[in-house]
Amino acid sequence: MTYNMDRLYEAVEAKGHVCVGLDTATEYIPPVEFRRAPSQAAAVLAYNSALIDATLDLAACYKVQIACYEELGLAGLETYAGTLRYIRERGGLVIADIKRGDIADTAARYAKAHFAGDFEADFVTLSPYMGMDSIEPWLSWAETAGKGAFVLMRTSNPGMRDFEYRELKSGGHLYDAVGDRLGELAAAHPGRYGYGAFGAVVGCTEREEAAAIRSKRSSLFFLIPGYGAQGGAADDAALLLRKGNGGVVNASRSILRAWMAEVHSNAAAANADNRVAAEAARNAAAAMRDAIWAAVRK
Amino acid sequence: MTYNMDRLYEAVEAKGHVCVGLDTATEYIPPVEFRRAPSQAAAVLAYNSALIDATLDLAACYKVQIACYEELGLAGLETYAGTLRYIRERGGLVIADIKRGDIADTAARYAKAHFAGDFEADFVTLSPYMGMDSIEPWLSWAETAGKGAFVLMRTSNPGMRDFEYRELKSGGHLYDAVGDRLGELAAAHPGRYGYGAFGAVVGCTEREEAAAIRSKRSSLFFLIPGYGAQGGAADDAALLLRKGNGGVVNASRSILRAWMAEVHSNAAAANADNRVAAEAARNAAAAMRDAIWAAVRK
Repeated sequence: MTYNMDRLYEAVEAKGHVCVGLDTATEYIPPVEFRRAPSQAAAVLAYNSALIDATLDLAACYKVQIACYEELGLAGLETYAGTLRYIRERGGLVIADIKRGDIADTAARYAKAHFAGDFEADFVTLSPYMGMDSIEPWLSWAETAGKGAFVLMRTSNPGMRDFEYRELKSGGHLYDAVGDRLGELAAAHPGRYGYGAFGAVVGCTEREEAAAIRSKRSSLFFLIPGYGAQGGAADDAALLLRKGNGGVVNASRSILRAWMAEVHSNAAAANADNRVAAEAARNAAAAMRDAIWAAVRK
Repeated sequence: MTYNMDRLYEAVEAKGHVCVGLDTATEYIPPVEFRRAPSQAAAVLAYNSALIDATLDLAACYKVQIACYEELGLAGLETYAGTLRYIRERGGLVIADIKRGDIADTAARYAKAHFAGDFEADFVTLSPYMGMDSIEPWLSWAETAGKGAFVLMRTSNPGMRDFEYRELKSGGHLYDAVGDRLGELAAAHPGRYGYGAFGAVVGCTEREEAAAIRSKRSSLFFLIPGYGAQGGAADDAALLLRKGNGGVVNASRSILRAWMAEVHSNAAAANADNRVAAEAARNAAAAMRDAIWAAVRK
Protein backbone atom coordinates (compact mmCIF):
# COMPACT_ATOMS: atom_id res chain seq x y z
CA MET A 1 0.00 0.00 0.00
CA THR A 2 1.26 3.44 -0.93
CA TYR A 3 0.01 5.68 1.82
CA ASN A 4 -1.08 9.20 1.02
CA MET A 5 1.60 10.19 3.54
CA ASP A 6 4.18 8.70 1.16
CA ARG A 7 2.70 10.72 -1.70
CA LEU A 8 2.87 13.83 0.48
CA TYR A 9 6.55 13.15 1.25
CA GLU A 10 7.20 12.91 -2.49
CA ALA A 11 5.25 16.13 -3.12
CA VAL A 12 7.46 17.92 -0.59
CA GLU A 13 10.58 16.62 -2.34
CA ALA A 14 9.27 17.87 -5.68
CA LYS A 15 7.53 21.12 -4.74
CA GLY A 16 8.56 22.27 -1.27
CA HIS A 17 6.72 22.49 2.04
CA VAL A 18 3.82 24.83 1.39
CA CYS A 19 0.32 23.71 2.36
CA VAL A 20 -2.13 26.26 0.94
CA GLY A 21 -4.89 26.72 3.49
CA LEU A 22 -8.20 27.33 1.75
CA ASP A 23 -9.89 28.85 4.80
CA THR A 24 -11.79 30.95 2.34
CA ALA A 25 -13.81 33.56 4.17
CA THR A 26 -16.12 35.54 1.90
CA GLU A 27 -14.40 38.76 2.95
CA TYR A 28 -11.20 37.62 1.18
CA ILE A 29 -12.85 37.53 -2.24
CA PRO A 30 -12.52 40.50 -4.61
CA PRO A 31 -15.79 42.47 -4.59
CA VAL A 32 -15.88 42.38 -8.42
CA GLU A 33 -16.20 38.60 -8.30
CA PHE A 34 -19.03 38.74 -5.81
CA ARG A 35 -21.04 40.85 -8.16
CA ARG A 36 -20.44 38.33 -10.95
CA ALA A 37 -21.25 35.16 -9.02
CA PRO A 38 -24.81 33.82 -8.67
CA SER A 39 -24.28 33.18 -4.92
CA GLN A 40 -21.75 33.56 -2.12
CA ALA A 41 -21.02 29.86 -2.27
CA ALA A 42 -20.43 30.00 -6.02
CA ALA A 43 -18.08 32.95 -5.55
CA VAL A 44 -16.04 30.94 -3.03
CA LEU A 45 -15.72 28.02 -5.44
CA ALA A 46 -14.64 30.29 -8.30
CA TYR A 47 -12.06 31.94 -6.06
CA ASN A 48 -10.71 28.62 -4.77
CA SER A 49 -10.49 27.20 -8.29
CA ALA A 50 -8.49 30.19 -9.49
CA LEU A 51 -6.07 29.90 -6.56
CA ILE A 52 -5.69 26.14 -6.98
CA ASP A 53 -4.87 26.52 -10.69
CA ALA A 54 -2.27 29.15 -9.82
CA THR A 55 -0.52 27.16 -7.07
CA LEU A 56 -0.76 23.51 -8.11
CA ASP A 57 2.89 23.28 -9.17
CA LEU A 58 4.25 24.80 -5.98
CA ALA A 59 1.88 23.59 -3.24
CA ALA A 60 2.73 20.24 -1.63
CA CYS A 61 -0.92 20.04 -0.66
CA TYR A 62 -4.02 22.01 0.27
CA LYS A 63 -5.88 22.20 3.55
CA VAL A 64 -9.57 23.07 3.49
CA GLN A 65 -11.03 24.39 6.74
CA ILE A 66 -14.61 23.09 6.74
CA ALA A 67 -15.81 25.79 9.19
CA CYS A 68 -15.54 28.45 6.47
CA TYR A 69 -17.96 26.41 4.34
CA GLU A 70 -20.34 25.29 7.10
CA GLU A 71 -20.74 28.97 7.89
CA LEU A 72 -22.57 29.30 4.55
CA GLY A 73 -24.91 26.38 5.28
CA LEU A 74 -25.83 23.70 2.77
CA ALA A 75 -24.70 25.77 -0.21
CA GLY A 76 -21.35 26.24 1.51
CA LEU A 77 -20.92 22.51 1.93
CA GLU A 78 -21.57 22.02 -1.78
CA THR A 79 -18.70 24.43 -2.37
CA TYR A 80 -16.61 22.48 0.15
CA ALA A 81 -17.27 19.26 -1.76
CA GLY A 82 -16.56 21.02 -5.06
CA THR A 83 -13.26 22.38 -3.76
CA LEU A 84 -12.05 18.95 -2.62
CA ARG A 85 -13.07 17.48 -5.97
CA TYR A 86 -11.34 20.27 -7.92
CA ILE A 87 -8.05 19.62 -6.13
CA ARG A 88 -8.18 15.83 -6.39
CA GLU A 89 -9.18 15.82 -10.07
CA ARG A 90 -6.03 17.82 -10.79
CA GLY A 91 -3.81 15.38 -8.90
CA GLY A 92 -3.39 17.58 -5.84
CA LEU A 93 -3.47 16.26 -2.28
CA VAL A 94 -6.03 17.68 0.12
CA ILE A 95 -6.34 17.70 3.88
CA ALA A 96 -9.90 18.08 5.21
CA ASP A 97 -9.43 20.22 8.31
CA ILE A 98 -12.34 18.84 10.30
CA LYS A 99 -10.74 18.00 13.68
CA ARG A 100 -13.18 15.19 14.40
CA GLY A 101 -13.02 13.08 17.54
CA ASP A 102 -15.84 10.81 18.68
CA ILE A 103 -16.52 7.29 19.95
CA ALA A 104 -15.60 4.33 17.79
CA ASP A 105 -18.99 3.72 16.10
CA THR A 106 -19.29 7.38 15.27
CA ALA A 107 -15.66 7.64 14.16
CA ALA A 108 -16.30 4.85 11.64
CA ARG A 109 -19.22 6.86 10.21
CA TYR A 110 -17.17 10.04 10.08
CA ALA A 111 -14.37 8.15 8.31
CA LYS A 112 -16.78 6.98 5.65
CA ALA A 113 -18.08 10.55 5.31
CA HIS A 114 -14.64 12.10 4.76
CA PHE A 115 -12.72 9.30 3.04
CA ALA A 116 -15.41 8.45 0.46
CA GLY A 117 -18.39 10.02 -1.26
CA ASP A 118 -19.17 13.72 -1.63
CA PHE A 119 -16.56 14.83 0.91
CA GLU A 120 -13.70 12.50 -0.01
CA ALA A 121 -10.32 13.89 1.04
CA ASP A 122 -6.81 12.41 1.10
CA PHE A 123 -6.20 13.34 4.73
CA VAL A 124 -8.21 14.57 7.70
CA THR A 125 -7.33 16.28 10.96
CA LEU A 126 -8.44 14.57 14.18
CA SER A 127 -8.72 15.58 17.83
CA PRO A 128 -7.43 13.08 20.43
CA TYR A 129 -9.29 14.16 23.60
CA MET A 130 -11.59 11.11 23.75
CA GLY A 131 -8.73 8.65 23.31
CA MET A 132 -7.30 6.24 20.80
CA ASP A 133 -10.57 4.41 20.12
CA SER A 134 -11.70 7.66 18.50
CA ILE A 135 -8.63 7.56 16.19
CA GLU A 136 -8.29 3.88 15.34
CA PRO A 137 -11.44 3.45 13.17
CA TRP A 138 -9.93 5.95 10.72
CA LEU A 139 -6.82 3.79 10.37
CA SER A 140 -8.59 0.97 8.54
CA TRP A 141 -8.87 3.47 5.66
CA ALA A 142 -5.08 3.80 5.64
CA GLU A 143 -4.86 0.06 5.19
CA THR A 144 -7.48 -0.19 2.44
CA ALA A 145 -7.25 3.14 0.62
CA GLY A 146 -3.99 4.75 1.75
CA LYS A 147 -5.82 7.54 3.56
CA GLY A 148 -4.00 9.68 6.11
CA ALA A 149 -4.64 11.83 9.16
CA PHE A 150 -2.97 14.45 11.28
CA VAL A 151 -3.89 14.24 14.94
CA LEU A 152 -3.77 17.37 17.07
CA MET A 153 -0.69 17.19 19.27
CA ARG A 154 0.58 20.67 20.08
CA THR A 155 -1.34 23.40 18.30
CA SER A 156 -0.43 27.01 17.53
CA ASN A 157 -3.15 28.93 19.41
CA PRO A 158 -2.57 30.65 22.77
CA GLY A 159 -5.13 28.31 24.40
CA MET A 160 -2.82 25.31 23.87
CA ARG A 161 -1.40 26.23 27.29
CA ASP A 162 -4.72 25.33 28.96
CA PHE A 163 -4.65 21.56 28.46
CA GLU A 164 -2.10 20.44 25.83
CA TYR A 165 0.73 21.85 27.95
CA ARG A 166 -0.45 20.45 31.25
CA GLU A 167 2.29 18.47 32.95
CA LEU A 168 1.44 14.88 33.75
CA LYS A 169 2.21 13.14 37.00
CA SER A 170 3.92 10.40 34.98
CA GLY A 171 6.20 12.98 33.33
CA GLY A 172 5.99 15.13 30.22
CA HIS A 173 3.07 17.16 28.96
CA LEU A 174 -0.31 15.99 27.75
CA TYR A 175 0.91 16.58 24.19
CA ASP A 176 3.82 14.20 24.88
CA ALA A 177 1.37 11.49 25.91
CA VAL A 178 -0.51 12.05 22.65
CA GLY A 179 2.77 11.94 20.74
CA ASP A 180 3.71 8.63 22.38
CA ARG A 181 0.48 7.00 21.24
CA LEU A 182 0.82 8.43 17.74
CA GLY A 183 4.34 7.01 17.58
CA GLU A 184 2.86 3.57 18.30
CA LEU A 185 0.40 4.00 15.43
CA ALA A 186 3.20 5.07 13.09
CA ALA A 187 5.27 2.03 14.05
CA ALA A 188 2.31 -0.22 13.22
CA HIS A 189 1.69 1.50 9.86
CA PRO A 190 5.12 2.49 8.54
CA GLY A 191 5.37 4.18 5.17
CA ARG A 192 8.17 4.09 2.59
CA TYR A 193 10.12 7.05 3.86
CA GLY A 194 10.18 6.49 7.60
CA TYR A 195 6.90 8.26 8.35
CA GLY A 196 3.74 6.46 9.47
CA ALA A 197 0.39 6.63 7.69
CA PHE A 198 -0.90 9.04 10.36
CA GLY A 199 1.01 12.11 11.51
CA ALA A 200 0.54 14.99 13.95
CA VAL A 201 -0.38 18.65 14.05
CA VAL A 202 2.50 20.60 15.63
CA GLY A 203 2.45 24.40 15.48
CA CYS A 204 5.54 26.47 14.73
CA THR A 205 4.73 29.23 17.19
CA GLU A 206 6.79 27.82 20.10
CA ARG A 207 10.42 27.85 19.10
CA GLU A 208 11.94 26.46 22.28
CA GLU A 209 10.71 22.86 22.14
CA ALA A 210 10.64 22.53 18.36
CA ALA A 211 13.96 20.72 17.88
CA ALA A 212 13.24 18.37 20.79
CA ILE A 213 9.78 17.50 19.43
CA ARG A 214 11.16 16.88 15.95
CA SER A 215 13.93 14.56 17.14
CA LYS A 216 11.66 12.66 19.52
CA ARG A 217 8.91 12.13 16.92
CA SER A 218 11.00 10.98 14.00
CA SER A 219 8.26 8.70 12.61
CA LEU A 220 5.56 11.40 12.54
CA PHE A 221 5.00 13.59 9.53
CA PHE A 222 3.89 17.01 10.76
CA LEU A 223 1.18 19.35 9.61
CA ILE A 224 2.57 22.67 10.83
CA PRO A 225 0.15 25.56 11.42
CA GLY A 226 1.00 28.96 12.85
CA TYR A 227 3.09 30.35 9.98
CA GLY A 228 2.66 33.98 8.94
CA ALA A 229 -0.47 35.57 10.37
CA GLN A 230 -0.15 33.48 13.56
CA GLY A 231 3.45 34.57 14.16
CA GLY A 232 5.64 31.67 13.05
CA ALA A 233 8.57 32.31 10.68
CA ALA A 234 10.45 30.12 8.20
CA ASP A 235 13.21 29.48 10.76
CA ASP A 236 10.64 28.26 13.30
CA ALA A 237 9.01 25.96 10.77
CA ALA A 238 12.39 24.57 9.66
CA LEU A 239 13.06 23.37 13.22
CA LEU A 240 10.07 21.03 12.82
CA LEU A 241 11.39 19.55 9.57
CA ARG A 242 13.89 16.71 9.23
CA LYS A 243 16.40 16.23 6.42
CA GLY A 244 14.43 18.78 4.44
CA ASN A 245 11.19 16.83 4.64
CA GLY A 246 8.85 15.43 7.32
CA GLY A 247 6.31 18.23 7.34
CA VAL A 248 4.16 20.67 5.44
CA VAL A 249 3.71 24.24 6.61
CA ASN A 250 0.25 25.68 6.34
CA ALA A 251 -0.49 29.29 5.48
CA SER A 252 -3.99 30.53 4.87
CA ARG A 253 -4.54 34.24 5.29
CA SER A 254 -1.11 35.32 4.00
CA ILE A 255 -1.83 33.52 0.72
CA LEU A 256 -5.60 34.04 0.41
CA ARG A 257 -5.34 37.76 1.15
CA ALA A 258 -2.07 38.41 -0.68
CA TRP A 259 -3.93 40.35 -3.38
CA MET A 260 -5.11 42.89 -0.78
CA ALA A 261 -1.52 43.62 0.20
CA GLU A 262 -0.41 43.94 -3.43
CA VAL A 263 -3.21 46.25 -4.45
CA HIS A 264 -2.15 49.69 -3.26
CA SER A 265 -4.90 52.09 -4.20
CA ASN A 266 -8.58 51.71 -3.41
CA ALA A 267 -9.43 52.08 -7.09
CA ALA A 268 -7.15 49.14 -7.95
CA ALA A 269 -8.71 47.05 -5.15
CA ALA A 270 -12.17 47.79 -6.49
CA ASN A 271 -11.11 46.46 -9.90
CA ALA A 272 -9.12 43.43 -8.72
CA ASP A 273 -10.52 40.11 -9.80
CA ASN A 274 -9.68 36.45 -9.26
CA ARG A 275 -6.90 36.66 -11.81
CA VAL A 276 -5.20 39.32 -9.68
CA ALA A 277 -5.88 37.35 -6.48
CA ALA A 278 -4.53 34.13 -7.95
CA GLU A 279 -1.35 35.80 -9.19
CA ALA A 280 -0.77 37.36 -5.78
CA ALA A 281 -1.45 34.02 -4.06
CA ARG A 282 1.07 32.33 -6.36
CA ASN A 283 3.70 34.93 -5.55
CA ALA A 284 3.05 34.63 -1.81
CA ALA A 285 3.19 30.82 -1.90
CA ALA A 286 6.41 30.88 -3.98
CA ALA A 287 8.04 33.35 -1.58
CA MET A 288 7.03 31.17 1.36
CA ARG A 289 8.37 28.05 -0.32
CA ASP A 290 11.69 29.77 -1.01
CA ALA A 291 11.92 31.16 2.55
CA ILE A 292 11.41 27.69 4.06
CA TRP A 293 13.93 26.08 1.69
CA ALA A 294 16.45 28.78 2.60
CA ALA A 295 15.82 28.19 6.33
CA VAL A 296 16.18 24.43 5.90
CA ARG A 297 19.51 24.83 4.08
CA LYS A 298 21.01 27.19 6.68
CA MET B 1 -31.41 36.55 28.94
CA THR B 2 -33.11 33.19 29.31
CA TYR B 3 -30.47 30.68 28.42
CA ASN B 4 -31.39 27.54 26.57
CA MET B 5 -29.87 25.76 29.57
CA ASP B 6 -32.68 27.29 31.68
CA ARG B 7 -35.22 26.02 29.18
CA LEU B 8 -33.63 22.59 29.36
CA TYR B 9 -33.85 22.63 33.16
CA GLU B 10 -37.55 23.43 32.86
CA ALA B 11 -38.03 20.67 30.29
CA VAL B 12 -36.49 18.17 32.71
CA GLU B 13 -38.87 19.34 35.45
CA ALA B 14 -41.83 18.87 33.13
CA LYS B 15 -40.88 15.79 31.16
CA GLY B 16 -38.03 13.92 32.82
CA HIS B 17 -34.41 13.35 31.86
CA VAL B 18 -34.52 11.57 28.53
CA CYS B 19 -32.47 12.95 25.66
CA VAL B 20 -33.47 11.06 22.53
CA GLY B 21 -30.34 10.53 20.46
CA LEU B 22 -31.13 10.68 16.76
CA ASP B 23 -27.96 8.90 15.66
CA THR B 24 -30.06 7.54 12.85
CA ALA B 25 -28.09 4.94 10.93
CA THR B 26 -29.86 3.74 7.80
CA GLU B 27 -29.77 0.17 9.15
CA TYR B 28 -32.21 1.17 11.93
CA ILE B 29 -34.98 2.09 9.50
CA PRO B 30 -37.72 -0.44 8.69
CA PRO B 31 -37.07 -1.94 5.23
CA VAL B 32 -40.66 -1.15 4.20
CA GLU B 33 -39.96 2.56 4.57
CA PHE B 34 -36.81 2.35 2.50
CA ARG B 35 -38.77 0.98 -0.39
CA ARG B 36 -41.25 3.86 -0.09
CA ALA B 37 -38.76 6.72 0.19
CA PRO B 38 -37.23 8.44 -2.85
CA SER B 39 -33.74 8.33 -1.28
CA GLN B 40 -31.83 7.11 1.77
CA ALA B 41 -31.67 10.66 3.10
CA ALA B 42 -35.43 11.10 2.66
CA ALA B 43 -36.04 7.82 4.51
CA VAL B 44 -33.96 9.06 7.44
CA LEU B 45 -35.93 12.30 7.65
CA ALA B 46 -39.27 10.46 7.55
CA TYR B 47 -38.08 8.10 10.28
CA ASN B 48 -36.78 10.92 12.48
CA SER B 49 -40.00 12.91 12.04
CA ALA B 50 -42.11 9.94 13.11
CA LEU B 51 -39.96 9.36 16.21
CA ILE B 52 -39.96 13.05 17.13
CA ASP B 53 -43.76 13.24 16.89
CA ALA B 54 -44.03 10.17 19.12
CA THR B 55 -41.63 11.39 21.83
CA LEU B 56 -42.07 15.15 21.97
CA ASP B 57 -44.08 15.09 25.21
CA LEU B 58 -41.61 12.86 27.06
CA ALA B 59 -38.20 13.87 25.73
CA ALA B 60 -36.46 16.72 27.54
CA CYS B 61 -34.47 17.24 24.35
CA TYR B 62 -32.99 15.56 21.28
CA LYS B 63 -29.39 15.05 20.33
CA VAL B 64 -28.53 14.71 16.66
CA GLN B 65 -25.21 13.05 15.85
CA ILE B 66 -24.01 14.79 12.70
CA ALA B 67 -21.72 11.88 11.70
CA CYS B 68 -24.75 9.76 10.79
CA TYR B 69 -25.80 12.43 8.31
CA GLU B 70 -22.37 13.35 6.95
CA GLU B 71 -21.99 9.68 6.11
CA LEU B 72 -24.70 10.21 3.46
CA GLY B 73 -22.95 13.24 1.96
CA LEU B 74 -24.72 16.43 0.92
CA ALA B 75 -28.15 14.78 0.85
CA GLY B 76 -27.52 13.57 4.40
CA LEU B 77 -26.75 17.07 5.58
CA GLU B 78 -30.02 18.28 4.09
CA THR B 79 -31.71 15.67 6.25
CA TYR B 80 -29.63 16.82 9.21
CA ALA B 81 -30.84 20.40 8.68
CA GLY B 82 -34.40 19.16 8.19
CA THR B 83 -34.28 17.17 11.43
CA LEU B 84 -33.08 20.14 13.47
CA ARG B 85 -35.77 22.31 11.91
CA TYR B 86 -38.48 19.72 12.56
CA ILE B 87 -37.61 19.58 16.26
CA ARG B 88 -37.31 23.33 16.73
CA GLU B 89 -40.54 24.14 14.85
CA ARG B 90 -42.38 21.88 17.31
CA GLY B 91 -40.90 23.64 20.33
CA GLY B 92 -38.39 20.89 21.12
CA LEU B 93 -34.81 21.55 22.18
CA VAL B 94 -32.01 20.09 20.12
CA ILE B 95 -28.34 19.44 20.78
CA ALA B 96 -26.13 19.31 17.67
CA ASP B 97 -23.61 16.61 18.53
CA ILE B 98 -20.71 18.02 16.52
CA LYS B 99 -17.81 17.99 19.05
CA ARG B 100 -16.08 20.94 17.42
CA GLY B 101 -12.86 22.42 18.75
CA ASP B 102 -10.67 24.81 16.77
CA ILE B 103 -8.79 28.11 17.05
CA ALA B 104 -10.71 31.26 17.90
CA ASP B 105 -11.29 32.61 14.37
CA THR B 106 -12.49 29.23 13.22
CA ALA B 107 -14.59 28.69 16.33
CA ALA B 108 -16.43 31.93 15.58
CA ARG B 109 -17.24 30.63 12.07
CA TYR B 110 -18.37 27.28 13.43
CA ALA B 111 -20.60 29.04 15.97
CA LYS B 112 -22.28 31.00 13.20
CA ALA B 113 -22.72 27.74 11.25
CA HIS B 114 -24.41 25.86 14.11
CA PHE B 115 -26.22 28.63 15.99
CA ALA B 116 -27.80 30.29 12.93
CA GLY B 117 -28.81 29.47 9.38
CA ASP B 118 -29.44 26.03 7.89
CA PHE B 119 -27.89 24.14 10.81
CA GLU B 120 -29.28 26.19 13.71
CA ALA B 121 -29.40 24.20 16.94
CA ASP B 122 -30.14 25.15 20.56
CA PHE B 123 -26.98 23.51 21.90
CA VAL B 124 -23.77 22.07 20.53
CA THR B 125 -21.16 19.71 21.90
CA LEU B 126 -17.54 20.95 21.97
CA SER B 127 -14.13 19.35 22.46
CA PRO B 128 -11.67 21.14 24.80
CA TYR B 129 -8.29 19.78 23.65
CA MET B 130 -7.09 23.04 22.04
CA GLY B 131 -7.99 25.15 25.08
CA MET B 132 -10.45 27.75 26.23
CA ASP B 133 -9.92 30.09 23.28
CA SER B 134 -11.59 27.34 21.21
CA ILE B 135 -14.63 27.45 23.54
CA GLU B 136 -15.04 31.15 24.30
CA PRO B 137 -16.16 32.37 20.84
CA TRP B 138 -19.25 30.18 21.20
CA LEU B 139 -20.16 31.93 24.46
CA SER B 140 -21.01 35.23 22.80
CA TRP B 141 -24.00 33.34 21.36
CA ALA B 142 -25.14 32.52 24.89
CA GLU B 143 -25.14 36.22 25.65
CA THR B 144 -26.98 37.30 22.51
CA ALA B 145 -29.22 34.34 21.69
CA GLY B 146 -29.28 32.14 24.78
CA LYS B 147 -27.42 29.34 23.00
CA GLY B 148 -25.81 26.56 25.02
CA ALA B 149 -23.02 24.02 24.79
CA PHE B 150 -21.82 20.84 26.45
CA VAL B 151 -18.05 20.53 26.56
CA LEU B 152 -16.47 17.08 26.66
CA MET B 153 -15.23 16.46 30.17
CA ARG B 154 -15.29 12.74 30.96
CA THR B 155 -16.81 10.66 28.20
CA SER B 156 -18.28 7.15 28.22
CA ASN B 157 -16.00 5.30 25.77
CA PRO B 158 -13.18 2.96 26.87
CA GLY B 159 -10.61 5.31 25.28
CA MET B 160 -11.36 8.00 27.87
CA ARG B 161 -8.61 6.31 29.92
CA ASP B 162 -5.98 7.34 27.36
CA PHE B 163 -5.98 11.09 27.97
CA GLU B 164 -9.03 12.32 29.92
CA TYR B 165 -8.01 10.18 32.90
CA ARG B 166 -4.35 11.11 32.89
CA GLU B 167 -3.26 12.39 36.29
CA LEU B 168 -1.77 15.85 36.31
CA LYS B 169 1.35 16.88 38.20
CA SER B 170 -0.69 19.66 39.79
CA GLY B 171 -3.26 17.14 41.06
CA GLY B 172 -6.43 15.62 39.68
CA HIS B 173 -7.06 14.25 36.22
CA LEU B 174 -7.13 16.07 32.91
CA TYR B 175 -10.92 15.96 33.07
CA ASP B 176 -10.76 17.76 36.44
CA ALA B 177 -8.73 20.55 34.85
CA VAL B 178 -11.38 20.84 32.13
CA GLY B 179 -14.12 20.85 34.78
CA ASP B 180 -12.36 23.66 36.68
CA ARG B 181 -12.30 25.87 33.59
CA LEU B 182 -15.93 25.06 32.76
CA GLY B 183 -16.88 26.00 36.33
CA GLU B 184 -15.32 29.42 35.71
CA LEU B 185 -17.41 29.84 32.56
CA ALA B 186 -20.56 28.84 34.43
CA ALA B 187 -19.82 31.37 37.19
CA ALA B 188 -19.49 34.10 34.56
CA HIS B 189 -22.74 33.09 32.81
CA PRO B 190 -25.08 31.90 35.57
CA GLY B 191 -28.57 30.82 34.64
CA ARG B 192 -31.79 31.00 36.65
CA TYR B 193 -31.55 27.63 38.31
CA GLY B 194 -27.93 27.51 39.42
CA TYR B 195 -26.55 26.08 36.17
CA GLY B 196 -24.36 28.05 33.78
CA ALA B 197 -25.12 28.66 30.13
CA PHE B 198 -22.53 26.01 29.15
CA GLY B 199 -22.42 22.55 30.71
CA ALA B 200 -20.35 19.39 30.39
CA VAL B 201 -20.48 15.91 28.89
CA VAL B 202 -20.07 13.34 31.68
CA GLY B 203 -20.71 9.67 30.92
CA CYS B 204 -22.56 7.36 33.28
CA THR B 205 -20.35 4.35 32.64
CA GLU B 206 -17.97 4.94 35.59
CA ARG B 207 -19.92 4.61 38.77
CA GLU B 208 -17.15 5.16 41.30
CA GLU B 209 -16.47 8.87 40.74
CA ALA B 210 -20.00 9.89 39.76
CA ALA B 211 -21.15 11.29 43.10
CA ALA B 212 -17.87 13.17 43.58
CA ILE B 213 -18.05 14.71 40.10
CA ARG B 214 -21.67 15.75 40.63
CA SER B 215 -21.02 17.44 43.99
CA LYS B 216 -17.86 19.16 42.79
CA ARG B 217 -19.48 20.51 39.61
CA SER B 218 -22.69 21.87 41.03
CA SER B 219 -22.93 24.70 38.48
CA LEU B 220 -22.60 22.45 35.43
CA PHE B 221 -25.61 20.91 33.73
CA PHE B 222 -24.59 17.52 32.40
CA LEU B 223 -25.24 15.80 29.09
CA ILE B 224 -24.90 12.17 30.14
CA PRO B 225 -24.04 9.57 27.48
CA GLY B 226 -23.40 5.87 28.05
CA TYR B 227 -26.90 4.76 29.06
CA GLY B 228 -28.26 1.47 27.72
CA ALA B 229 -26.23 0.08 24.83
CA GLN B 230 -23.00 1.51 26.31
CA GLY B 231 -23.61 -0.14 29.70
CA GLY B 232 -24.88 2.59 32.03
CA ALA B 233 -28.04 1.98 34.08
CA ALA B 234 -30.61 4.32 35.63
CA ASP B 235 -28.88 4.12 39.02
CA ASP B 236 -25.58 5.20 37.45
CA ALA B 237 -27.23 8.10 35.67
CA ALA B 238 -29.04 9.20 38.84
CA LEU B 239 -25.68 9.66 40.59
CA LEU B 240 -24.90 12.40 38.07
CA LEU B 241 -28.15 14.26 38.75
CA ARG B 242 -28.80 16.76 41.53
CA LYS B 243 -32.11 17.40 43.30
CA GLY B 244 -33.79 15.52 40.46
CA ASN B 245 -32.42 17.82 37.79
CA GLY B 246 -29.04 19.00 36.51
CA GLY B 247 -28.69 16.60 33.62
CA VAL B 248 -30.21 14.86 30.63
CA VAL B 249 -29.45 11.24 29.87
CA ASN B 250 -28.92 10.32 26.25
CA ALA B 251 -30.02 7.07 24.69
CA SER B 252 -29.78 6.46 20.99
CA ARG B 253 -29.72 2.83 19.90
CA SER B 254 -32.05 1.55 22.65
CA ILE B 255 -34.73 3.99 21.44
CA LEU B 256 -34.03 4.04 17.69
CA ARG B 257 -33.89 0.25 17.47
CA ALA B 258 -36.63 -0.50 19.99
CA TRP B 259 -38.93 -1.67 17.18
CA MET B 260 -36.48 -4.42 16.27
CA ALA B 261 -36.64 -5.80 19.81
CA GLU B 262 -40.43 -5.62 19.87
CA VAL B 263 -40.93 -7.32 16.54
CA HIS B 264 -40.56 -11.02 17.24
CA SER B 265 -41.00 -12.85 13.96
CA ASN B 266 -39.18 -12.09 10.73
CA ALA B 267 -42.48 -11.70 8.95
CA ALA B 268 -43.55 -8.99 11.40
CA ALA B 269 -40.19 -7.23 11.01
CA ALA B 270 -40.60 -7.25 7.25
CA ASN B 271 -43.96 -5.51 7.62
CA ALA B 272 -43.00 -3.03 10.36
CA ASP B 273 -43.18 0.59 9.33
CA ASN B 274 -42.38 3.96 10.91
CA ARG B 275 -45.65 3.83 12.88
CA VAL B 276 -44.46 0.64 14.57
CA ALA B 277 -40.95 2.06 15.07
CA ALA B 278 -42.31 5.29 16.56
CA GLU B 279 -44.59 3.46 18.96
CA ALA B 280 -41.71 1.25 20.11
CA ALA B 281 -39.45 4.29 20.51
CA ARG B 282 -42.11 6.01 22.60
CA ASN B 283 -42.43 2.97 24.85
CA ALA B 284 -38.66 2.69 25.24
CA ALA B 285 -38.29 6.40 26.04
CA ALA B 286 -41.16 6.28 28.56
CA ALA B 287 -39.66 3.23 30.28
CA MET B 288 -36.29 4.96 30.46
CA ARG B 289 -37.85 8.14 31.86
CA ASP B 290 -39.66 6.13 34.52
CA ALA B 291 -36.56 4.13 35.42
CA ILE B 292 -34.50 7.28 35.92
CA TRP B 293 -37.24 8.95 37.99
CA ALA B 294 -37.44 5.81 40.13
CA ALA B 295 -33.65 5.82 40.61
CA VAL B 296 -33.65 9.53 41.50
CA ARG B 297 -36.35 9.00 44.13
CA LYS B 298 -34.65 6.03 45.80
